[in-house]
Amino acid sequence: MIAELSDKEYAMQRIQEVNSALSDGMFVAARRMLHNMPACDVALLLESSPPKSRSIVWKLVDVEEHGEILEELNEEVQKDIIRQMAPENLAAATEGMDTDDLAYVLRGLPEPVYQEVLKSMDESDRERAETALSYAEDSAGGIMNTDTITLRSDVTIDVVLRYLRLKGELPEATDKLYVVDRNEKVTGEISLTQLLTVDPSRRIDEIMSSDITTIPVDMEETEVAKLFERHDWVSAPVVDSDQQLVGRITIDDVVDIIREEAQHSMLSMAGLEDDEDTFAPVLKSTRRRTVWLAVNLVTALLAAMVSSLFEDILAQMAVLAILNTIVPSMGGIAGSQTLTLVIRGMALGHIGTSNSRWLIGKELAIGFLNGIIWSVLIAAVVALWKQDWLVGGIIAFAMMMNLVAAALAGATIPLVLKRFNIDPALAGGVILTTVTDVVGIFAFLGSATLLLS
Amino acid sequence: MIAELSDKEYAMQRIQEVNSALSDGMFVAARRMLHNMPACDVALLLESSPPKSRSIVWKLVDVEEHGEILEELNEEVQKDIIRQMAPENLAAATEGMDTDDLAYVLRGLPEPVYQEVLKSMDESDRERAETALSYAEDSAGGIMNTDTITLRSDVTIDVVLRYLRLKGELPEATDKLYVVDRNEKVTGEISLTQLLTVDPSRRIDEIMSSDITTIPVDMEETEVAKLFERHDWVSAPVVDSDQQLVGRITIDDVVDIIREEAQHSMLSMAGLEDDEDTFAPVLKSTRRRTVWLAVNLVTALLAAMVSSLFEDILAQMAVLAILNTIVPSMGGIAGSQTLTLVIRGMALGHIGTSNSRWLIGKELAIGFLNGIIWSVLIAAVVALWKQDWLVGGIIAFAMMMNLVAAALAGATIPLVLKRFNIDPALAGGVILTTVTDVVGIFAFLGSATLLLS
Repeated sequence: MIAELSDKEYAMQRIQEVNSALSDGMFVAARRMLHNMPACDVALLLESSPPKSRSIVWKLVDVEEHGEILEELNEEVQKDIIRQMAPENLAAATEGMDTDDLAYVLRGLPEPVYQEVLKSMDESDRERAETALSYAEDSAGGIMNTDTITLRSDVTIDVVLRYLRLKGELPEATDKLYVVDRNEKVTGEISLTQLLTVDPSRRIDEIMSSDITTIPVDMEETEVAKLFERHDWVSAPVVDSDQQLVGRITIDDVVDIIREEAQHSMLSMAGLEDDEDTFAPVLKSTRRRTVWLAVNLVTALLAAMVSSLFEDILAQMAVLAILNTIVPSMGGIAGSQTLTLVIRGMALGHIGTSNSRWLIGKELAIGFLNGIIWSVLIAAVVALWKQDWLVGGIIAFAMMMNLVAAALAGATIPLVLKRFNIDPALAGGVILTTVTDVVGIFAFLGSATLLLS
Repeated sequence: MIAELSDKEYAMQRIQEVNSALSDGMFVAARRMLHNMPACDVALLLESSPPKSRSIVWKLVDVEEHGEILEELNEEVQKDIIRQMAPENLAAATEGMDTDDLAYVLRGLPEPVYQEVLKSMDESDRERAETALSYAEDSAGGIMNTDTITLRSDVTIDVVLRYLRLKGELPEATDKLYVVDRNEKVTGEISLTQLLTVDPSRRIDEIMSSDITTIPVDMEETEVAKLFERHDWVSAPVVDSDQQLVGRITIDDVVDIIREEAQHSMLSMAGLEDDEDTFAPVLKSTRRRTVWLAVNLVTALLAAMVSSLFEDILAQMAVLAILNTIVPSMGGIAGSQTLTLVIRGMALGHIGTSNSRWLIGKELAIGFLNGIIWSVLIAAVVALWKQDWLVGGIIAFAMMMNLVAAALAGATIPLVLKRFNIDPALAGGVILTTVTDVVGIFAFLGSATLLLS
């Protein structure tokens, strides 16, 4: 039958059925439901379950399903579950796993368990695992599969077709076969489409496309993702330093990277880690977030100390204390807009030495325009509210200063951090807030001290 | 030859060569460079160019390239360039464009131009365009292509193979052919892999997989993306309400949606629009960002008004004015961590009615733990710094209150907004800051008034 689609809502609904079954202690029913669920839905269920029910669900899943489900899980939850599995079960689960997932699972294991799992694997799996583990986790080698089909260039299509029929099946997401010479060097590729549409009597080397882009095994996974996105690839060949074919990367793994990479900025801007598990236990989450709060307490104290420098004028005029927060907060907002844009631009590879100066100039201009708009507005508001034109003028001046400073900081901080190989998404926000707080308070209370005391 | 990869850095470098050629006025050289660049690199160049050089580059590009480059461009820049093109050139550029891109381009046009472009199109293109335009932009219909190859179930593989050879080529990213009955209803699919590996004498209906998931033409594109991600599809069939095949969605379009969707939260949390163009002219960008700053000015003023309620105590003790910013800022940070996690969890479809209560409980517990940690710490700091244990105790109490409030707000606000169909990523941050500011100031200055005046 044709499934009238199993979209997210539908999956969520089935997941809730299982949940209610569990909470009612109807484990037999739950097991049956799980048995009929596709692996990707079980994975979604595990990802959206609190720790306790997570391990219950895992116990109810068919053992044969374990491998497939592990492959579908996101890193954090996968780690979480693997920790609860016995080495022999783990070894069983890893049978027939894609090389990249296999390597990932093994990397997560403590040394002794890792050795046990390797032991209980069969020969071929162990070899695949060891090759995969020899490459960096976030490199092309770490995400590639080794299940490639290669051809020689001097045979006819007809021979290839007979060979494929003999083989009976092709690896998942195969859209091309790679042509290699006797040293396993990639010399070209031929698409399944070509195999199906070209006259079978023709030779591979007559029709193969030899102008192809290969991916070096040590290329960073984010670079790989960009290549896939720009060239609309479904799969691409991975080669070692001698152009020898070592594996193949497929779009399904790249999609995960793209999603993770795009989320990375958002999460790290809030001081969260990429693999943050929404349903991790309380203590773990608290520990993870503490660092960030500590950093920001320092920032807040710094701002307080700056205010502290102007204690005299604050003591004289409570109105300054009341208005003291407005300029810093507006600076923070305006700055974070610039910061976010620049960080995204850098992630998309839009920002380089050639245009960064133009960009800084543009953001400065925006900051200046914003400065005019908002200082006039705030001056009017304060003058009407507090019946004090002088204070209105002072806050207007501070607003102007701070919005320009915010634009400058928001545009330059990420560029500078990048140069020092510090992740702008992680550190950018704090530094920006520090700048906008300090400049804002200095400009406001400083000029107040000069003019009012 | 095998290209030793053209990764982002490499593209950036070539782009800078073009830029410098342009700035030196060497237009002939620049044109030659552009001529040798792949469309995706020219697109990257345009996306990373300021308005002025953007239009210069466009003038230097070969006219035949226009269509391909337009397809590669992101929405905002695409719009920007289309506006500068004469209708007849536009019509020429759209020839042979994928249906979805064609529809997108046409949607961007002002009515009169739109009509002109349609007129100057040839029959088949016009028809394709009109079908595509009949579907919502962000629906499956809006992103599908109509270039599908269909088969009847009663023929043999051999017949299919001969048909394909006759056809000579297949649409891009074709990994499956769809089997339809005489009413064009989808009854199954068969992969190219099967065609290549199965005995040619067998009939389609013997080997086709009839248990397939079809995508309704009105399904939201983000739902489509989730399906592709969960099922690792390369392409999927789109059907109308009668299960009749109307088109085909391919992974390359889905990848763009995934990237946009994942960026959406990050951008809207800073009050920026998805298609924000990093290199848009100053005035345009300023206008776009003003709304957000206006909203946040209101928030800041609200906070100031709350402080204003406690003018008396602020007038008595400047130290309170100095410390007044610490509690709100810590609350803002802690809250935004929760907010970000919940928003991401909702985007991934991890959070539903079944687990939201658990999640709120968890975040509250974290807020409570954080409260203990940071109130003790801030009390000690203040007591040592300002030599005032009472104020230390007061700020500790306020910190406790605000961190719990922040956790509660961060977890519930997005859930509530979602229920009212308001984008949590856009509105969540402001509401959260308002809560943490008001609660923080009230708790701190309020208790100070009770205990100190």
